[in-house]
Amino acid sequence: MNNKPLVFLRDVKLAPPSPTDKTADADRLTAALKQEGFARVVIPLDILRRLPGELRKKNFDIELVLGLQGETVSVLDISRSRIYGLALDIGSTNIEAALFDLSTGDEIAGRKTGNPQVPYGSDVLTRVQASMMGRFSILAGELLNGINNLISDICSANSITHDEIVAVTVAGNTIMTHFFLGLDVNNIPLSPYIPVVGSPVFLNGAESSLLINRNSLVYVFPNAGSYVGGDIISGIIAAGLAREEEPVLFIDVGTNVEITLGCRDWIMTGAGAAGPALEGGVAGIGKTAEPGTIYKVSLGSSGQLETEVLAGTGQIEPMGICGSGLIDLVAALYDSGRIDQTGRFTEAASGVVEREGVKAFTVWRSGGTELLLTEAEIKNFLISKAAMFSFLYVFVKSVGLTFRDIKKIYIAGALGCGINPESAIAIGMLPDVPRERFIPLGNSSLTGAGMVLLNASLLEEVERISPMVTYREMNEDAELMSILQGAMFIPHTDPELLRR
Amino acid sequence: MNNKPLVFLRDVKLAPPSPTDKTADADRLTAALKQEGFARVVIPLDILRRLPGELRKKNFDIELVLGLQGETVSVLDISRSRIYGLALDIGSTNIEAALFDLSTGDEIAGRKTGNPQVPYGSDVLTRVQASMMGRFSILAGELLNGINNLISDICSANSITHDEIVAVTVAGNTIMTHFFLGLDVNNIPLSPYIPVVGSPVFLNGAESSLLINRNSLVYVFPNAGSYVGGDIISGIIAAGLAREEEPVLFIDVGTNVEITLGCRDWIMTGAGAAGPALEGGVAGIGKTAEPGTIYKVSLGSSGQLETEVLAGTGQIEPMGICGSGLIDLVAALYDSGRIDQTGRFTEAASGVVEREGVKAFTVWRSGGTELLLTEAEIKNFLISKAAMFSFLYVFVKSVGLTFRDIKKIYIAGALGCGINPESAIAIGMLPDVPRERFIPLGNSSLTGAGMVLLNASLLEEVERISPMVTYREMNEDAELMSILQGAMFIPHTDPELLRR
Repeated sequence: MNNKPLVFLRDVKLAPPSPTDKTADADRLTAALKQEGFARVVIPLDILRRLPGELRKKNFDIELVLGLQGETVSVLDISRSRIYGLALDIGSTNIEAALFDLSTGDEIAGRKTGNPQVPYGSDVLTRVQASMMGRFSILAGELLNGINNLISDICSANSITHDEIVAVTVAGNTIMTHFFLGLDVNNIPLSPYIPVVGSPVFLNGAESSLLINRNSLVYVFPNAGSYVGGDIISGIIAAGLAREEEPVLFIDVGTNVEITLGCRDWIMTGAGAAGPALEGGVAGIGKTAEPGTIYKVSLGSSGQLETEVLAGTGQIEPMGICGSGLIDLVAALYDSGRIDQTGRFTEAASGVVEREGVKAFTVWRSGGTELLLTEAEIKNFLISKAAMFSFLYVFVKSVGLTFRDIKKIYIAGALGCGINPESAIAIGMLPDVPRERFIPLGNSSLTGAGMVLLNASLLEEVERISPMVTYREMNEDAELMSILQGAMFIPHTDPELLRR
Repeated sequence: MNNKPLVFLRDVKLAPPSPTDKTADADRLTAALKQEGFARVVIPLDILRRLPGELRKKNFDIELVLGLQGETVSVLDISRSRIYGLALDIGSTNIEAALFDLSTGDEIAGRKTGNPQVPYGSDVLTRVQASMMGRFSILAGELLNGINNLISDICSANSITHDEIVAVTVAGNTIMTHFFLGLDVNNIPLSPYIPVVGSPVFLNGAESSLLINRNSLVYVFPNAGSYVGGDIISGIIAAGLAREEEPVLFIDVGTNVEITLGCRDWIMTGAGAAGPALEGGVAGIGKTAEPGTIYKVSLGSSGQLETEVLAGTGQIEPMGICGSGLIDLVAALYDSGRIDQTGRFTEAASGVVEREGVKAFTVWRSGGTELLLTEAEIKNFLISKAAMFSFLYVFVKSVGLTFRDIKKIYIAGALGCGINPESAIAIGMLPDVPRERFIPLGNSSLTGAGMVLLNASLLEEVERISPMVTYREMNEDAELMSILQGAMFIPHTDPELLRR
């Protein structure tokens, strides 16, 4: 049974009934599947209703869509030649999906859309408050509509029908998972912070209200607590963290910095507000990484800044800068002496202009377009980088480890797309360890969801991991504030900390 | 877990969450139920949605409606103080229901209605033909409506709500079970006679389309083949046949004579057309046993016939005669010399009148009411009794047994209501064995369904029994015809056969 997708095709040839073998259709099929090693066979009523006709039309040689759930196999559909699975990452800001051909295991499309709950509150707490005020159904409905629109877009863009989607894996933070399942979110943000469900949830397509095959297997990743959502568990799967013999670090940077540290024996995770988001929120020109954004900045031989723009269709001029580009940019500004340790423009800084009394560095200018970064925005960025470094430092130290002990550092989320460790280390955002230890991971939550979709045996790993994860509250740490103060400087008032 | 109803109430007190115990609501409940010995716990999505509110409203001390299905317990409902279960027998002619209070195990109401499919064909084969001609959905819908009307009547008559019905057990012949489940009936009556499903089927209320609690457990008895329906399996449970050390006989007389013979080691069953039904079909005055029907006839000291009428509300004059009354009547007519061995009126027969050139015996006369039994009707009756006796004889003999070997003979169906073995033996319908061996059983299919409703551990017995049952085709037996010919006579041309 190992390494099979959650749902797969299986051709089954049955001996046709005869006067000496009068076994009923469903029992005949069940016996054949048990002979193939499935301990328990479930045939939903709507499939029972179609079974006799399909069997006789196909002369008792039929193609089955089978779904695995532990020892139980369910017959989800009959006589279907193409089947697809969808991995879903429901983030507070974005919903992202990846479509897989379950016959080949190939990822054939990806798509991202804004979370339609954002107008009701940019952060999850505001949305929970809105729910408490009676808007739960609206918020849950908006989320479901958003996902269903995404599914419809994917279906039409790839010429597949909704019924051909037979498996969905869903990873999200605890609040998003609850909204998705229509579960009460009110107790999650109030002490003692109790979610409705912590274990994985299996639904069928009809129950999920998703626009997919009604018998689909829908798997929702477990959350290990109010602050440790299924997205973290999925990310741990993506990083393979729970298979490591020695501790590895896994950093996911979004609105929060989420840090997970551990190996196959223990896993600890923590999160903290990272100040303004590195992606989009820090600066006016900040953008998520997409075609037309500057994703790389380097210092030319004559001290000029050279930028690289993510290629897209027809886009020539950059329209903003993404997280990795911003880290490069600040490092280059510091390296070229344009800003000092505190992030202020130096007297001699070239490229600095003044607009309406505010000093700003000209990142890009051409024709009417001007991309500017102000001193205040650099300060914002430094708060975020300080928060991230201090969390990392305090977190690693709290388990009695040093940065040097950690052989792999996975970086997911906004920064995962192409961070240059050299720049991040130069400004004191990441620890100064050998560069090859940094491994970019992109959207790890989506990656993990896709991995489970393609390999049902990982469900056991998920169930093993989830109860192992302990949560460490970081914002309450006493040492944090002193580290944080120094980390506002480039690279730090005590640069030795980066190497500890 | 033993001897619990399929669905039962359970009060569960949970330790409320605290800063040191942040377990999610559903996981908290699951853990508590596992501690009580349930290996696997299922909480449907709609219950998950209500759980946090109910837990906090009741201070974590809640009343659960739990359903058992093997090792798995499902939380069907919360905070319900009364729960009811319904046993259903779906016959070709009648649908009968018994309502049980699942908290006390008391049977609190019974109700019977005609099968609304009858207008589409009095026998099941005609209905299957109608299905083949495209009327399947109409027939399945009619049956479902009939059952739902019955449920609504029971609910209003007993002041319970549809949601308070949380368990239903369904027994019926193979065709009726298939119609109930919306399963294709076309292959059942055609060689090699293959049903869609032979194993038991578990549904929830919503899937069943019954007007009951949407999470109800609905259990459909397995059929052991095209000709051995769930009603027989249920009857075997009612008779306790599969627990006997020595073979017992179980006779169910309706449109067909169904005979089951066996013990805990083997079970054989067979059925055959019994000619005109003993209940209703034999004579114009034939009725099913209900208030106002003659159910007992005896010979007075001066040769006059004395009748007893089933008591009812306000009914004084009889309006017909039921199966047991008819057996008594024919025995008394023969005993008093009014009819001869062949069923013909004798010359001296008193009480015989002539109406429109047809001789008939006056069973009852008062005012304008006259209940008459013609010679042709007596002949019809004798065909049925002959069929029944010959089936019995051939069946018992075919396994190498004699009537004397059989210590218990259960009589269910139309005749079960109050057959007088003395009369049945006198006319050669039942074998001449000690009278105490005959045990009336009423509607055994309904009884068995009620027993399973109240005792989930019987599910295992059902699953053990079902594959054990072998079917013996009786109408093809060579000896049958010769026995049948003699059995048309009263009691038989070879009366010794009754004692063999």
